[in-house]
Amino acid sequence: MFISEKKVEVRYAETDQMGVVHHSNYLVWMELGRTALIQELGFTYAGLEADGYLAPVINVSIQYKSAMKYGQTATVRTWIESHKRLRTVYGYEILHEDGTVATTATSEHVLVTKEEFKPVLLSKVNPEWDAVYTKEQRVTS
Amino acid sequence: MFISEKKVEVRYAETDQMGVVHHSNYLVWMELGRTALIQELGFTYAGLEADGYLAPVINVSIQYKSAMKYGQTATVRTWIESHKRLRTVYGYEILHEDGTVATTATSEHVLVTKEEFKPVLLSKVNPEWDAVYTKEQRVTS
Amino acid sequence: MFISEKKVEVRYAETDQMGVVHHSNYLVWMELGRTALIQELGFTYAGLEADGYLAPVINVSIQYKSAMKYGQTATVRTWIESHKRLRTVYGYEILHEDGTVATTATSEHVLVTKEEFKPVLLSKVNPEWDAVYTKEQRVTS
Amino acid sequence: MFISEKKVEVRYAETDQMGVVHHSNYLVWMELGRTALIQELGFTYAGLEADGYLAPVINVSIQYKSAMKYGQTATVRTWIESHKRLRTVYGYEILHEDGTVATTATSEHVLVTKEEFKPVLLSKVNPEWDAVYTKEQRVTS
Repeated sequence: MFISEKKVEVRYAETDQMGVVHHSNYLVWMELGRTALIQELGFTYAGLEADGYLAPVINVSIQYKSAMKYGQTATVRTWIESHKRLRTVYGYEILHEDGTVATTATSEHVLVTKEEFKPVLLSKVNPEWDAVYTKEQRVTS
Repeated sequence: MFISEKKVEVRYAETDQMGVVHHSNYLVWMELGRTALIQELGFTYAGLEADGYLAPVINVSIQYKSAMKYGQTATVRTWIESHKRLRTVYGYEILHEDGTVATTATSEHVLVTKEEFKPVLLSKVNPEWDAVYTKEQRVTS
Repeated sequence: MFISEKKVEVRYAETDQMGVVHHSNYLVWMELGRTALIQELGFTYAGLEADGYLAPVINVSIQYKSAMKYGQTATVRTWIESHKRLRTVYGYEILHEDGTVATTATSEHVLVTKEEFKPVLLSKVNPEWDAVYTKEQRVTS
Repeated sequence: MFISEKKVEVRYAETDQMGVVHHSNYLVWMELGRTALIQELGFTYAGLEADGYLAPVINVSIQYKSAMKYGQTATVRTWIESHKRLRTVYGYEILHEDGTVATTATSEHVLVTKEEFKPVLLSKVNPEWDAVYTKEQRVTS
């Protein structure tokens, strides 16, 4: 199983009046993690969109363990939790600088056409990418 | 069970290049839903913070059913799913103008002190608020 | 000169660790002001985009006078500062609940085609809209 | 005059339905530029806040020349435009990968106490920092 590690510097604008990163930003960081993972595996999400496809999120689950603060750099660890015919689940762990876990999460995605939002198989759109995801998934039920 | 209904106009800045609302914004709308629910039940979250307490999110789960677009107005339905000694779970349904469901979600919160992030009981901090939440929760296991 | 008045409830997510609204959000509120102004004058920005046009911002100037806080409702006053052949400038005043000014601003926009970002004249695209803007502008040099 | 150069990867969440970076995000990138500049000059903004001070924005002016897109990396060039007793102006140039200018901007800041938002002199709070800013400013009228 391949795990991408992406450094993300906390932005001032990402904090809220609690003095910590607002919880909605972790979804954005997870997106940065996916972008990095895809790139490190040899593909690009921007390219997929240029070809006429989108990979919208259909489910997200996040567990907030300990808050991040401005001045810190997070490490977003991203992997392919499972890759089925029509659904891909990514797993995430967001770490503090000392390695303790700030957040764990999963997000589930489908692949659709840009014009009509109709589901398509990654195995048809990009068989190579599909093969890599099948090989690198954590769960192989 | 009391259900709050909050209208939220989709903002242009909330869209992304998919042409729909970016999925991270639903977390912000859920926050608007909670703020409205609390106010309609006779309390204010701003007041709770002014008294030295915070209610950070510890778990979020979202199911994206169908995308919202700029030009639309969402209805965020928010209720108290369950209210235990230390944890409160809110339930959400975000609706399109025609009443179809765009998103369903839950978020789990704890109450902590502002200074040290130490858990406190709502029943100690604000017994009246605690009583209303206990009465209005959906699940009463 | 027509002035639109749009109420905007401060969102928790819009605050930062200074305890006030992060300054980037005023640009989003100004966008809400434009959307409201256009609608009140009988047109829709969503409709303009559906017809194949965009009105990107080319200049923004903001003066921050006093900060807004969570729990407050802002009033965004928006008007047409000037409307020339190719450039439209909007004026803004964002007010606290007591009427004092939080922020003043202007933003300058051009109209372009969606596909190629080529400048077009509002007078060609929508002569009625152009006439209303010409009539309602504050500056008539 | 010292110029900081900060690389910023465009985030998917930063795009809007125009297919380009939403104009409000440039304010956030400018903040990243300031953070980097301050750090490269040997200080930290997080440290200044920890000491009980804030440096809120009082004026911003942005010129949007050409839009940035997802998949690109921006370079945020930041410098001290001028540093007077009570007001510091930062200058910015945001560049595409090929070096063409996407955006130019300035932002003006004051230094205030965290508790009461009362203006203070950087020369009193941190004379060393004040000396570096005085030396490195572009305009020395």
